[in-house]
Amino acid sequence: MTYCVGLRLNKGLVFMSDTRTNAGVDNISTFKKMFTWSVPGERVITMMTAGNLATTQSVISLLDEQTKVQAERNPSILEAPTMFQIAQLVGDKLREVVQANATGGQKADSAFNATIILGGQIQNGEQRLYLIYPEGNFLEASEDTPYFQIGETKYGRPILVRAYGADMSFEDAAKLLFVSFESTIKANLSVGPPLDLQVYEKDSLKTGIERRIEKDDKYFASISSLWGEALKKAFNSLPDFKLG
Amino acid sequence: MTYCVGLRLNKGLVFMSDTRTNAGVDNISTFKKMFTWSVPGERVITMMTAGNLATTQSVISLLDEQTKVQAERNPSILEAPTMFQIAQLVGDKLREVVQANATGGQKADSAFNATIILGGQIQNGEQRLYLIYPEGNFLEASEDTPYFQIGETKYGRPILVRAYGADMSFEDAAKLLFVSFESTIKANLSVGPPLDLQVYEKDSLKTGIERRIEKDDKYFASISSLWGEALKKAFNSLPDFKLG
Repeated sequence: MTYCVGLRLNKGLVFMSDTRTNAGVDNISTFKKMFTWSVPGERVITMMTAGNLATTQSVISLLDEQTKVQAERNPSILEAPTMFQIAQLVGDKLREVVQANATGGQKADSAFNATIILGGQIQNGEQRLYLIYPEGNFLEASEDTPYFQIGETKYGRPILVRAYGADMSFEDAAKLLFVSFESTIKANLSVGPPLDLQVYEKDSLKTGIERRIEKDDKYFASISSLWGEALKKAFNSLPDFKLG
Repeated sequence: MTYCVGLRLNKGLVFMSDTRTNAGVDNISTFKKMFTWSVPGERVITMMTAGNLATTQSVISLLDEQTKVQAERNPSILEAPTMFQIAQLVGDKLREVVQANATGGQKADSAFNATIILGGQIQNGEQRLYLIYPEGNFLEASEDTPYFQIGETKYGRPILVRAYGADMSFEDAAKLLFVSFESTIKANLSVGPPLDLQVYEKDSLKTGIERRIEKDDKYFASISSLWGEALKKAFNSLPDFKLG
C-alpha cells in the first residue's frame, strides 16, 4: 500500500509520502512516490501517487516526457497557464493510462487504479492542492478540508483532525506528519520508511526543502517512542469513568 | 457500518459496541449489536456482531431459539460444555446463514458477510474471547493479541495499541474504549451512538455491569472535547523538528 499526505497551510504546502510498494506481503520494494517539477521563479509542481505502481509510474513518465518534447499538441505541465489546467492534464493522463491497462490484454486480479495528490503554484496564481481520482476528476483543498490523504488513510487521520491548524509553522506541520505516519506504519506493514518530506513556501516559486527520512532517523525514532508515552499521559489525564 | 471491541483483561472481559446500521447513507437505523445469554453461576456468553444485519439477526435468533426448544439434535449454546464448542456452534450457524443467503434467490450487490466477537466463561473453564469469521472458522485472543475489533477498526486502533494493558482496571478499560469509539465516530458517519458497554468480571459467572451510553451522555461528551485538547498537548510535548 502507500500513505501520502498533502497539507495546505497559510505559509505554504507540506508533502509527505512513504516509499514502500508491495505485490502481496512477500514482494516488497522501495519506490519514490513524490515527484517535483519546477521552473524557478515561475512555477513549482509536486505530485504524490498511490495505487497501482505501473499506472503511477506510467503517468509520471508520460507527464515528464511531455515537458521535454517540443511540438506536442497538448501543453505540458510546465506550460499550462494555471494549476487548474495542470490538474486537468494530470487527470486526463491518469484516466488514459487506467483505461489503456483495463481494456484488452491480460486481465489482472487487482484494479489498475491510482490516485494522485497534486500541489503547487504558478506565478500570479495562488498555491493550490488537488486530489485527483482514477476517473480523471478532482477535488481542490478548501478551508474546510485543507489536507488530502491517499493510500492507507485511516490510522493516521485522528491526529490530523485534532492537531492540524492552518496557521501552523512548517516545523509543526512536519512533526504532525511524522506522528500521523508513525501511527500508520505501526499498524500497516505495507506502509514503511524511508519517508520523503517536502516543504513549499508560498510565493517562493522554487522547490523548497526536501528531506529523505531514513529508517534509522533519530528524530523519527524519538517520535515513535515519545508519542506512545505522550498518548498514555493524555489518556491518563482524562476524567475517570465510574462504572458503579 | 459498525464498530465493536472486545478486550480481554486479567480481571475479566469488557465489550463495547455502537448501534448504528445503514443501507447507504440515506437509510440509517439503530439496532443493538450486543447480545448476552447467561445461566447465573454456570455460564455467561456475550456476542457482538458486525456485517450484514439480516445475517447477524438471523444467526442470533437461531442461536437463541435453540436455547428454548428442547430435543434439538445439536446442543444449544447454553448446553455446550466449553467456550470452544460454543465458538464452533456460532461459527457453523454463521456459515450456514451466509451460505443460505448467498446461493439461490435474488442476488444482492453487497455480500451477506458478517463477523462476530464471542466472549464468556463456563464453570470450571477459563474466560475466553473469540473472533468468528463468516467462513465459520475463528481465532482466540491470546496474550499477544488480547483484544478484537470488528467493523470500522482502523481509526480507533492506534490508541488501543498504545494504551491497552492486561492489568487495567475496568474503569480504565471503559475509558479506553470511549476514546477509541470517539475517534471512530468522529471519522466515520456510519458508526454512531448510543453505545453499549458490558463488563464481565472473571469467575463471577453472572452478567456484569451493562450500560447504554446515549448520544447526550455527559461523560462521553466530556471525553470528546477533552481528548482533543489532551492530544494537542501530547503533540506539543514532542520534540520540535528542525527543517533547516
